[in-house]
Amino acid sequence: MHETVNGRLATAGLSLPPTPAAVGAYVPAVRSGTLVFTSGQLPMVDGELVARGAVDTEVSVETAHQCATECALRALAAAASVADLDSVVRVVKVTGYVASAVGFTAQPSVIDAASAVMKAAFGESGAHAREAVGVAALPLGAPVEVSVVLEVS
Amino acid sequence: MHETVNGRLATAGLSLPPTPAAVGAYVPAVRSGTLVFTSGQLPMVDGELVARGAVDTEVSVETAHQCATECALRALAAAASVADLDSVVRVVKVTGYVASAVGFTAQPSVIDAASAVMKAAFGESGAHAREAVGVAALPLGAPVEVSVVLEVS
Amino acid sequence: MHETVNGRLATAGLSLPPTPAAVGAYVPAVRSGTLVFTSGQLPMVDGELVARGAVDTEVSVETAHQCATECALRALAAAASVADLDSVVRVVKVTGYVASAVGFTAQPSVIDAASAVMKAAFGESGAHAREAVGVAALPLGAPVEVSVVLEVS
Repeated sequence: MHETVNGRLATAGLSLPPTPAAVGAYVPAVRSGTLVFTSGQLPMVDGELVARGAVDTEVSVETAHQCATECALRALAAAASVADLDSVVRVVKVTGYVASAVGFTAQPSVIDAASAVMKAAFGESGAHAREAVGVAALPLGAPVEVSVVLEVS
Repeated sequence: MHETVNGRLATAGLSLPPTPAAVGAYVPAVRSGTLVFTSGQLPMVDGELVARGAVDTEVSVETAHQCATECALRALAAAASVADLDSVVRVVKVTGYVASAVGFTAQPSVIDAASAVMKAAFGESGAHAREAVGVAALPLGAPVEVSVVLEVS
Repeated sequence: MHETVNGRLATAGLSLPPTPAAVGAYVPAVRSGTLVFTSGQLPMVDGELVARGAVDTEVSVETAHQCATECALRALAAAASVADLDSVVRVVKVTGYVASAVGFTAQPSVIDAASAVMKAAFGESGAHAREAVGVAALPLGAPVEVSVVLEVS
């Protein structure tokens, strides 16, 4: 296994995007003591949402997986703006919101893609507590939003 | 008052379920320093949801109370997988999501049942900060999902 | 710039409401170590909701801004019940839920009003990680609910 987060992500065919831009009076992530809290991340690539709408009707579950992957990578990029990812000792919590069409209840399947990014990046230390929730709507029409809490040394 | 969490729960006619199974790349709870963060817990008993659907139409408020009680007990069981519950010095936060039919706004009443479990388990130390939110859908069609943050000594 | 939180808020034409009343088995805020977690706050003024319903249909975006401002002020008042606001070294996280009509995706614009309160109160230290989420319904029919995590010295 690679010894760095970037190396492990590359092995999984993944890479961190640029630091998500600060939008308004908040920031991508905040460190407090040994904890890093990220903002909720949307599935943006090159400044555009990967997809828009509710999962299962407007957005397929497969596309939602891609969205969750992008959100998770952006969350790590956000965390990297305030802490060295190689100093992460544990992924503490992943919160995943899924914009859900009526009757869609496979939110865990969608957010598994975000959990997989944590495992790819941190191995055993990537195992985390998690919430997956289906919501009415997300900012800009995003299908998925993910935030994380990390513990750093 | 009993001196142990299990004793106090028994006095209230409650008992902890088995540790919730890890599903995929996440775990029931994570300890970071003096804080324990649990995953969002669903109202499962013996591997089955107690009820399914939105509160107030498909699921009654009374059943939702039972669901919130089960979620809270499972959250404590999850926490017990990483820390001794008798070392809990404070329940810090309870987050309760309620799958809500259009127009249903009594989420606090539903989540009161989860808060009551914290009081039964920890007495005065069970008083916590709380969020109650009504959402479109929850994993597997659960009516309620609850996560907690505990402080341990 | 004023040296106290109350002074800075007054400069912005804002003031803290009374400590939000504890409702049931939870409390307005809990301090754990250097972190203060508040309960989710509703836009109550003098014991009444400022507005009721989903944003964009029943409640205008402009009114939702006012609601988010009130929620944020109440969150600070809640925090003040367990810690001196002048000892806040950083606003760590703001979570904002917006009761959203179908198709409403400007949750960030609504929650910007809560973020602005943090900046008014704490200046540069008010910059925080944030989640903005659109939900089906909130307690009592509130259009907005906001909770915060603060770091105190």
